[in-house]
Amino acid sequence: MRVLVLGGDGFCGWPTALHLSAKGFEVAIVDNLSRREIDEELGVQSLTPIASIEQRVATWKAVTGRDIAFHKLTMGQDYAAFTALLKEWKPTAIVHFAEQRAAPYSMKSAQHKRYTVSNNINATNDMLAAVVDSGMDIHVVHLGTMGVYGYGTAGMAIPEGYLTIKVETPEGLVEQEILYPANPGSIYHMTKTQDALLFQFYAKNDKLRITDLHQGIVWGCQTEETRLDPMLINRFDYDGDYGTVLNRFLIQSQLGHPLTVHGTGGQTRAFINIQDTVRCVALALDSAPKRGERVRIMNQMTECHRVRDLAEMVSGLTGVDIAFLPNPRAEADENDLHVENRLLLGLGLKPMTLQEGLLTEITEVARAYADRADLTKVPCVSAWNADRLAATMEPVASVRRVLAE
Amino acid sequence: MRVLVLGGDGFCGWPTALHLSAKGFEVAIVDNLSRREIDEELGVQSLTPIASIEQRVATWKAVTGRDIAFHKLTMGQDYAAFTALLKEWKPTAIVHFAEQRAAPYSMKSAQHKRYTVSNNINATNDMLAAVVDSGMDIHVVHLGTMGVYGYGTAGMAIPEGYLTIKVETPEGLVEQEILYPANPGSIYHMTKTQDALLFQFYAKNDKLRITDLHQGIVWGCQTEETRLDPMLINRFDYDGDYGTVLNRFLIQSQLGHPLTVHGTGGQTRAFINIQDTVRCVALALDSAPKRGERVRIMNQMTECHRVRDLAEMVSGLTGVDIAFLPNPRAEADENDLHVENRLLLGLGLKPMTLQEGLLTEITEVARAYADRADLTKVPCVSAWNADRLAATMEPVASVRRVLAE
Repeated sequence: MRVLVLGGDGFCGWPTALHLSAKGFEVAIVDNLSRREIDEELGVQSLTPIASIEQRVATWKAVTGRDIAFHKLTMGQDYAAFTALLKEWKPTAIVHFAEQRAAPYSMKSAQHKRYTVSNNINATNDMLAAVVDSGMDIHVVHLGTMGVYGYGTAGMAIPEGYLTIKVETPEGLVEQEILYPANPGSIYHMTKTQDALLFQFYAKNDKLRITDLHQGIVWGCQTEETRLDPMLINRFDYDGDYGTVLNRFLIQSQLGHPLTVHGTGGQTRAFINIQDTVRCVALALDSAPKRGERVRIMNQMTECHRVRDLAEMVSGLTGVDIAFLPNPRAEADENDLHVENRLLLGLGLKPMTLQEGLLTEITEVARAYADRADLTKVPCVSAWNADRLAATMEPVASVRRVLAE
Repeated sequence: MRVLVLGGDGFCGWPTALHLSAKGFEVAIVDNLSRREIDEELGVQSLTPIASIEQRVATWKAVTGRDIAFHKLTMGQDYAAFTALLKEWKPTAIVHFAEQRAAPYSMKSAQHKRYTVSNNINATNDMLAAVVDSGMDIHVVHLGTMGVYGYGTAGMAIPEGYLTIKVETPEGLVEQEILYPANPGSIYHMTKTQDALLFQFYAKNDKLRITDLHQGIVWGCQTEETRLDPMLINRFDYDGDYGTVLNRFLIQSQLGHPLTVHGTGGQTRAFINIQDTVRCVALALDSAPKRGERVRIMNQMTECHRVRDLAEMVSGLTGVDIAFLPNPRAEADENDLHVENRLLLGLGLKPMTLQEGLLTEITEVARAYADRADLTKVPCVSAWNADRLAATMEPVASVRRVLAE
């Protein structure tokens, strides 16, 4: 199998590229290095010292003898170069990570909303139009998000992409299957619901074979392959835009700041370890839908936790206190979440739980690189709307107090 | 009321701008004249001789004494200029027509798919982000399409935007209202379903007041206001990309070509006259949703017809034959369609029927300007996918035969 990984320099893309290469797939990466540019814009850096993409692929070659080609292209813009690459290299599959992936970043300002919408939708549409143009039967695997679903209905587990409904008609109650109704919580999540409409259209009109992986929040940094050499290390984001809730707790715990929980911390989220992410992508590639089949949607998550329970887990392992602060997101403070994930389990996924992996995560990454962390970057300063602006002030003040002590 | 009409130089936008101005609203137009550029690209022109936008607004001033300002801006690109205009002119409402609106054009090639997606989604998102940025409580009225719905369920009338469903849960059958599931038939229609997700998000997150008018196929050319002076005449498209089915029948009837029906002509479509379109927009502006209310969706159509019934109507009035040809669109040959339109009727809309208006349309426009028509431009040469390519050949050959006679 020959796999083109779009966004293969990023947090999920890089370890996926390595995992697929290690499994013996031919792998090439397309990336415009925008994630590194955003680090510059935000004045932050990965906690882990990541190598350049050129160093990364050279190290992989030195360590394993395997080639990974790198093509610097902007998806959504460099259409001619991308179609030329498809025609020349003839991939059997494309894995599409080439999107702006942070909800808080997408809500920072009008410019960030505009960038996220234009970047994500044009990247996905260009990729699909190019596959049609190529005339090749390329399987497309896309990294979507659990965040397209909103928060479920009356104790029902969120199904994998499609929902069976009943509708009153003149002929009685009629049963139908529909795409699960979208209820995105940020501009970023909204773009993934727009992607879903693109996938449905191209699968129907052009019979493209598409798998959409609705992923939970990824935790963990390293995989079997990224551990092989320090130059292969994966990125670890802990800032208020790109750092997910667990990563920010881990850094706070190492720098003596209370773990900051927004609202009551009663928001339940779905999680998955990065090692499981890369395995799921490989499983999805090995079991492609048939031509003419509808878009295959799988929930790529392994467990659900409330944010305050995560905080308690980290607090228990590190002895750091928890602080409850106002929430800058427009969302309910408490929600239940039940999620179906039988499809990937059925393909053979053996999940790693937070309970098993959290201590490794603390010692291998958070503690090991704590001296590179900047506590002032941890608070989320993006407010979802004008009403939530005040909620971004208190965490910043709290960091100032800790640093002044 | 102060209304900014985005896309106010186009087929729906221009007569809407005049109608609102005639009603005493203050009106300004934003347009980048892209529709005129596409005429150049396609080598076609409006059947009616349309004046430049400068001549149009100068004539309107001369005839009525009313001012309409024109701002040449590209929505989705000229964001700073657009926000500056909002802050300076302080509109109370925006009517958004600034999108590429032809399904066949959107399917011509990868470049046309890319243009339609990027143009339409970025235009809508920029408009919404700018309204949030402005801090003003501006009512947004968007021209959507009936084409977002797909083709309905088991004899049920398509409701106005939202669908009541029942879902099995552990707590029994639960009733919910959802956005009507999207089933777009072209890239153009798909962009309107993506717009709908933007509207839902901004209404939820920022409490924007939004009305989305799901419009049927517009027929007719002139309105009370565009008839006031030849320099105010509206555009009339009859080409295979922008000409709707009725307009193309009208031109074929005047040039002695059989009326070309694709497939069996059993596709049922929803229709509305252009005079009713402009009245509906005015009615929507007069009854804005409240702040915090969900997106108000109204079906802007007045009657449904099968394509072959339209052909028979035109054939009956003009004596021209009907020819059945293969269909370049990927769609079912026969479908029923029932549509709710109680909301606009409830606001006072008095529809004009095809039966009443068709003869005027023939004499006032199609016959009057038939000498400007180019029969070779009538066939639709956009195929929806590779399987449908052959279907675009026969209409072209048919035109050649008629012209050779």
